[in-house]
Amino acid sequence: MATTLIKGGTVVSATGRGEADVLIDGETIAAVLAPGSQLLGTDVAASVDTVVDATGKYVIPGGIDAHTHMELPFGGTNASDTFESGTRAAAWGGTTSIIDFAVQRYGERVEDGLAAWHEKARGNCAIDYGFHQIIGGVDDDSLRAMDSLIDEGVTSFKLFMAYPGVFYSDDAQVLKAMQKSAETGLLTMMHAENGPAIDVLAAQLAEAGKKAPYYHGIARAWQMEEEATHRSIMLANLTGAPLYVVHVSAKQAVEQLAWARDRGQNVFGETCPQYLYLSLEEQLGAFSDEWGQFEGAKWVCSTPLRSRAEGHQDHMWQALRTNDLQMVSTDHCPFCMKDQKERGKDDFRAIPNGIGGVEHRMDLMYQGVVTGKITLERWVELTSTTPARMFGLYGKKGVVQPGADADIVVYDPNGHTSIGYGETHHMNMDHSAWEGFEIDGHVDTVLSRGKVIVDGGEYLGRPGDGQYLKRGLSQYLV
Amino acid sequence: MATTLIKGGTVVSATGRGEADVLIDGETIAAVLAPGSQLLGTDVAASVDTVVDATGKYVIPGGIDAHTHMELPFGGTNASDTFESGTRAAAWGGTTSIIDFAVQRYGERVEDGLAAWHEKARGNCAIDYGFHQIIGGVDDDSLRAMDSLIDEGVTSFKLFMAYPGVFYSDDAQVLKAMQKSAETGLLTMMHAENGPAIDVLAAQLAEAGKKAPYYHGIARAWQMEEEATHRSIMLANLTGAPLYVVHVSAKQAVEQLAWARDRGQNVFGETCPQYLYLSLEEQLGAFSDEWGQFEGAKWVCSTPLRSRAEGHQDHMWQALRTNDLQMVSTDHCPFCMKDQKERGKDDFRAIPNGIGGVEHRMDLMYQGVVTGKITLERWVELTSTTPARMFGLYGKKGVVQPGADADIVVYDPNGHTSIGYGETHHMNMDHSAWEGFEIDGHVDTVLSRGKVIVDGGEYLGRPGDGQYLKRGLSQYLV
Amino acid sequence: MATTLIKGGTVVSATGRGEADVLIDGETIAAVLAPGSQLLGTDVAASVDTVVDATGKYVIPGGIDAHTHMELPFGGTNASDTFESGTRAAAWGGTTSIIDFAVQRYGERVEDGLAAWHEKARGNCAIDYGFHQIIGGVDDDSLRAMDSLIDEGVTSFKLFMAYPGVFYSDDAQVLKAMQKSAETGLLTMMHAENGPAIDVLAAQLAEAGKKAPYYHGIARAWQMEEEATHRSIMLANLTGAPLYVVHVSAKQAVEQLAWARDRGQNVFGETCPQYLYLSLEEQLGAFSDEWGQFEGAKWVCSTPLRSRAEGHQDHMWQALRTNDLQMVSTDHCPFCMKDQKERGKDDFRAIPNGIGGVEHRMDLMYQGVVTGKITLERWVELTSTTPARMFGLYGKKGVVQPGADADIVVYDPNGHTSIGYGETHHMNMDHSAWEGFEIDGHVDTVLSRGKVIVDGGEYLGRPGDGQYLKRGLSQYLV
Amino acid sequence: MATTLIKGGTVVSATGRGEADVLIDGETIAAVLAPGSQLLGTDVAASVDTVVDATGKYVIPGGIDAHTHMELPFGGTNASDTFESGTRAAAWGGTTSIIDFAVQRYGERVEDGLAAWHEKARGNCAIDYGFHQIIGGVDDDSLRAMDSLIDEGVTSFKLFMAYPGVFYSDDAQVLKAMQKSAETGLLTMMHAENGPAIDVLAAQLAEAGKKAPYYHGIARAWQMEEEATHRSIMLANLTGAPLYVVHVSAKQAVEQLAWARDRGQNVFGETCPQYLYLSLEEQLGAFSDEWGQFEGAKWVCSTPLRSRAEGHQDHMWQALRTNDLQMVSTDHCPFCMKDQKERGKDDFRAIPNGIGGVEHRMDLMYQGVVTGKITLERWVELTSTTPARMFGLYGKKGVVQPGADADIVVYDPNGHTSIGYGETHHMNMDHSAWEGFEIDGHVDTVLSRGKVIVDGGEYLGRPGDGQYLKRGLSQYLV
Repeated sequence: MATTLIKGGTVVSATGRGEADVLIDGETIAAVLAPGSQLLGTDVAASVDTVVDATGKYVIPGGIDAHTHMELPFGGTNASDTFESGTRAAAWGGTTSIIDFAVQRYGERVEDGLAAWHEKARGNCAIDYGFHQIIGGVDDDSLRAMDSLIDEGVTSFKLFMAYPGVFYSDDAQVLKAMQKSAETGLLTMMHAENGPAIDVLAAQLAEAGKKAPYYHGIARAWQMEEEATHRSIMLANLTGAPLYVVHVSAKQAVEQLAWARDRGQNVFGETCPQYLYLSLEEQLGAFSDEWGQFEGAKWVCSTPLRSRAEGHQDHMWQALRTNDLQMVSTDHCPFCMKDQKERGKDDFRAIPNGIGGVEHRMDLMYQGVVTGKITLERWVELTSTTPARMFGLYGKKGVVQPGADADIVVYDPNGHTSIGYGETHHMNMDHSAWEGFEIDGHVDTVLSRGKVIVDGGEYLGRPGDGQYLKRGLSQYLV
Repeated sequence: MATTLIKGGTVVSATGRGEADVLIDGETIAAVLAPGSQLLGTDVAASVDTVVDATGKYVIPGGIDAHTHMELPFGGTNASDTFESGTRAAAWGGTTSIIDFAVQRYGERVEDGLAAWHEKARGNCAIDYGFHQIIGGVDDDSLRAMDSLIDEGVTSFKLFMAYPGVFYSDDAQVLKAMQKSAETGLLTMMHAENGPAIDVLAAQLAEAGKKAPYYHGIARAWQMEEEATHRSIMLANLTGAPLYVVHVSAKQAVEQLAWARDRGQNVFGETCPQYLYLSLEEQLGAFSDEWGQFEGAKWVCSTPLRSRAEGHQDHMWQALRTNDLQMVSTDHCPFCMKDQKERGKDDFRAIPNGIGGVEHRMDLMYQGVVTGKITLERWVELTSTTPARMFGLYGKKGVVQPGADADIVVYDPNGHTSIGYGETHHMNMDHSAWEGFEIDGHVDTVLSRGKVIVDGGEYLGRPGDGQYLKRGLSQYLV
Repeated sequence: MATTLIKGGTVVSATGRGEADVLIDGETIAAVLAPGSQLLGTDVAASVDTVVDATGKYVIPGGIDAHTHMELPFGGTNASDTFESGTRAAAWGGTTSIIDFAVQRYGERVEDGLAAWHEKARGNCAIDYGFHQIIGGVDDDSLRAMDSLIDEGVTSFKLFMAYPGVFYSDDAQVLKAMQKSAETGLLTMMHAENGPAIDVLAAQLAEAGKKAPYYHGIARAWQMEEEATHRSIMLANLTGAPLYVVHVSAKQAVEQLAWARDRGQNVFGETCPQYLYLSLEEQLGAFSDEWGQFEGAKWVCSTPLRSRAEGHQDHMWQALRTNDLQMVSTDHCPFCMKDQKERGKDDFRAIPNGIGGVEHRMDLMYQGVVTGKITLERWVELTSTTPARMFGLYGKKGVVQPGADADIVVYDPNGHTSIGYGETHHMNMDHSAWEGFEIDGHVDTVLSRGKVIVDGGEYLGRPGDGQYLKRGLSQYLV
Repeated sequence: MATTLIKGGTVVSATGRGEADVLIDGETIAAVLAPGSQLLGTDVAASVDTVVDATGKYVIPGGIDAHTHMELPFGGTNASDTFESGTRAAAWGGTTSIIDFAVQRYGERVEDGLAAWHEKARGNCAIDYGFHQIIGGVDDDSLRAMDSLIDEGVTSFKLFMAYPGVFYSDDAQVLKAMQKSAETGLLTMMHAENGPAIDVLAAQLAEAGKKAPYYHGIARAWQMEEEATHRSIMLANLTGAPLYVVHVSAKQAVEQLAWARDRGQNVFGETCPQYLYLSLEEQLGAFSDEWGQFEGAKWVCSTPLRSRAEGHQDHMWQALRTNDLQMVSTDHCPFCMKDQKERGKDDFRAIPNGIGGVEHRMDLMYQGVVTGKITLERWVELTSTTPARMFGLYGKKGVVQPGADADIVVYDPNGHTSIGYGETHHMNMDHSAWEGFEIDGHVDTVLSRGKVIVDGGEYLGRPGDGQYLKRGLSQYLV
């Protein structure tokens, strides 16, 4: 098998950094060596097939985006990235694993949903991929089906307290699923918003003629996220289920998580770059002329963007520092403006919810290192190490150590990345929610299981490089 | 230089574990290798000077005890372990670095205190050692002297809100020292108990004839620890100083720390094995007959043991899990019963405060892994990785990675350790506070900078093996 | 009109006490006079028709029980007290007003429900009575009907987060009703338990053969009360509705209320004597032999009795002291054992939920004065003054002052009351949940609108004495 | 004795309001009568010596200002109001009782301090007056002296955690005094600011040339108030002492009080009109030119004015609504600009601390009723009823009921009061901190123990009208 040496870089882990060379043998890391790579008299660099020069750069475990929705059917259309286009975009951005969501809806069989997602992904992915299971209809049949998920390598499932009539579970259903979670060790993931109440508010706004995208955020008030977060915490407390709340955006929701954690409960939270950088005020700012007001549709996602004046964004950064939030995923769920977001031109309720970002997460979070909001180590922890531990991949993923898959990113702190429109990104979208963001760093080289798939601004991989990840149980529970 | 291979073990870090071999070249780690140690055609095991077989065992970074008091003058006597005896006992127990406290008292020069401690330690230590600086008298001269501590590799200093007339700083002094901390990056360590109030309570108890050791704990009520913890947090909040509270024992103090951390403040807390395992009730239980009542003197330390009925011990374990407390040190401050603890035979106030435990920390904490209170990774994090990061040693210490000092412990989860009296421990004490504790694990082999100093029940090192550690600034601040 | 002088007593208000005589002219209080009753040369005592000697006794405003359910259809049967029997029992116990709950169910008209309750009560009551409106089916029609409730003197309505299929409102319905509350000033009352989740737990217990009354309390876990309390607080926060949570029994629910109040929200809580005195453990204690185990059915109510070991009862008393809870009502909902409670002999889920207590509230709360749990003034405030203010009756009720209805109780602190079985209470029940309670005080004389209806152990009133109370908006909002 | 009837008004109490006439016989209230004053055939109005027409006006218990400092020696000068001038100004403003602070300093005898204050007040006061005792030097002698304070009618004492070298008590002293408080029932009052730390900050500011009045507020940071508030709460928790924190101005201090109260501790807080209306920003706004910058000296008081941007003022109003603060006093401590405040022209540290306001409290708080911040009832509760209960005067003071002293204010909600400079106030000050405030109400008539002392814009009383109030123990403890 081919051997590669990544030489001269600074290897960064969740706890620290150090000068070291990384020797790859085939798909896995064979050794981490003191710089210089003289090992018992052998000049390692001279002995390998390929040398990647990482001098002056960071060598980090490849990014793991634990929250993506490729090809998700939603709002009468499908998320615009296929597994092929979406995972390739991810690779460009330094992400070497995704965990996507297989879907079961009310009346459907869990097994069928999972099989369908395997079908969509198999042979098409640029990077490794795993699945969480959405349980959109908790009933006797789906509860039984959950028993075999662990054997399938699907060790987490998501419930929705939002979207009545679509993915929604009522509290009786949540309780039953959480009992299953406590019993099996499957991690419960929760979309925590009070959907029934939000739908009333949204209908009232629409009836009052308030139909622009901005009102999406008004309808989905922070109280409804805080409330559902607390409710899910108490149901978890009652059942003993471990709980992971997705896309946290309200500071009050974070306070609920922090409070539960201080009491020793196994409760975790993820946020997304949009909740760190974007705001409701900017969405409103787009709201100027007839068409302009619809520009805000780019940023229609759920949970929604929050008010900067209320301090949510700052609080999210703080919570990432204090570990009241543990991870950053993207909730990548891209829709084009044309034919997709436009469906809600006359009513925000018809806008497909979602922002595309799988390509930009590593960069956007690195910018937080540049601006001093998080440390370099915390960057690696939030984007790779904790995702691996949380979702049962650690050892193979999330760490640069012997025996691990050689998923490695060489990141250049002296490079630069402009995030823009059209040609400059690789996601299948006709716009970007991130247009105009400038990053003081650059993803130089990306290896996926030992193979260089991005290098020198070229994509060197192909569909099917990525393999399915059978995940183990969470390694993060306290 | 000599080469060593630790082979066949499971390397454990703060974030995970994996099968790997560790190659040591001289004093440092040269490589971490996939198991089997076939590297580019070389059989590594066959090429090294020494092979340590770690099959079935854990390979961990050597323990770092960041809170010891060797030879401390206190209460009219000196802590009974010298740097020689104390560091040797530490080595026996799998601890390969200590950070001891140099002392400056009111009217003395900081430089003199630090020089005196260098004098005590130099050439005598079995393992590496660093210093914090106790500032017992904050004045213009000592504040000036603090400016040069960083150059000396002393990057943290301790203040006392207790012990008026001995080490005590009033709030004006604490404020000034914290301003220096914020300005320089020196980490403020705090003994957080309201000394003036405690001394009133202690005197009142003594006047009422309540002079047995048990009353030491009554006088030092939890309210007085909670209060001082909060006070130090607010002074840190005002000045911007990073704060590390030592030997936290009251659950209410932990709540204050958690609350401050949730607000984003750089506040940290350490607890000690005695606050996890021992209780005020047991101290009272020793209180049966004339002499028996004095048995409780073994456990006289400050902060004191807390009531188990009030749940402090459980809360400490929980806080270690949730990272509301970050580290476990020993506050090793041994005194013999004879001639030392006995000084307080007629009045608890004259009992020298302190428990010896530098030898048992790694074992006692490992027992928490056995009983499911913490994970294996958290064990390493609490006892080695975080101490290294907190006190500016990470990279050289606290991690098994190339370039790090080869301070490594091979720990056998199938071994057993009985902690007992007299011959079975190596600290210079005529008793043990830990007599009767049984541990389902065993420290097999200890390497300090590449040299095997404990192996097969034999001590192979000698005084002077240990070197002074010039520490950098804390690497743990958020 | 007839004149009466209550002479020589200590008049107690919510804020203090003082020696004073009370002059009644017809149905209202004409004057409160300094003791001695010499007014501008007139000997008042000599000039009135009747003198009641209250020497050595307390003169207090008649009790107001703001939570009763006379003749409530529930669980396939009706609460066993009619308005006639129930209000007479109330009078015996020093309560001179009740506020009962008119019922609207899903598909029924609010107007019809209210009319039906008027029909039940009219001409039958011993004391004055008002109504809250239960809205068991929030829809366009019932929302419209709420607009006219204020004109009817019904200024508060109750929703249920429990009892799916019976009274339950989902969050969309709660939101809409709260919007109406915020808009009109109607006070939202809430039964705060997560019904859908509780029903799952109850069914699971029953399936597991755990069908004795005790399991009623296990199914209705404190987490489900805490959760619903928080949820209702957040929906109130969002809508601006004032909120009154009924029959609070879990200390964690009180913490949620306290937290909301500290933030300035108009949130209130009521508890009941059963949550102050009785416990889940005692209900379990009844659970000894075949029939014995069913004895616990006496204490089946919702919210359920809570564990004394967990400290709920002590916390309720504390919350009454600190005004984190504002009122004590009874939730009087009596069922006989025979033919009623017995319906659930084989399954706790079929036991009608409810405890009878309208007769004993004033005594049971006075015992809290005797034991030092609350002050004499707080007794009056919790049982009369705040109920009057909270529900828009103050001025006519809840206070001894000129112009107020002469609803007055003469309470003897040197008297004694034994609460027992059968003949010794006046509620229409074949048992008592309060059997064996001894009270160090006694209701001596009760006046309702100037008429003595209880005196010297005799009931002197008759059905129809009591009139309907058109209530104003709450006078308690901050 | 002379009889007076206050006729046609609305009598307001802490719990409600009602139309009623008040009959006064000599110094006390003889009766409260239904409007119309036909009593058993007697036309009361025709039978009394004097009739005060209160039609369309509020009849309230006279204000009680529980925190004044007449003639206080401070900062090298004396507060500019004597008991004569200060109590007369109080009367003009509707305040009929003050509680002033007798002073004991370190090395002085408590008895001498109290005697000196009796000497200053006796024969000079326009209204009734009581004393708290400042204990500026806790030692064996002063602790002994505290035992007899209750017999003297002085049932509360104040300690200072600020002003080292002047009034300051260290924590050992605070603890001892609180033990006395718990033992005797004397209420502990606390000036809660960390004086030693504040003095360091103030000195540093002055050394940096920041000497304008504004820096007074910078030196006295909110952290130092929050800290001392928490510390006093914990010392009270330890000893069981009831605690009353004076002049609370920081929202974080209120949070500490709320938290302690939620746990059931007997802890109370007072704020003052300056913390509700004035702010640090306005003090800075005065800071424009050479002399202008000294204008801010008017508002130099301790605790200091707080930042409006941080929301302290709004939080104080909220806390008054939620009863997290229980009372409003003035901390009346007037100093003229000339010769007094001017002492600190070159250094804020030399400005005597204090604001005069005894005359304006009732008006300023009434304006809170007008603007909807508090209810009419809460106005009476905060300014009269609770002060009476808190400090053992209730029954004689704080309520309009038979037997009470006839201290009554007729307040006209249709009147107007302009608070201004020079002639328009009656305090002995050459300026007003309240210049320019407009009040939508007016104090029309003031009776002190039955005598009309202010009416129709005329002062009808004379020095010596006011008598010493021997107070009982607090009637407010829960």
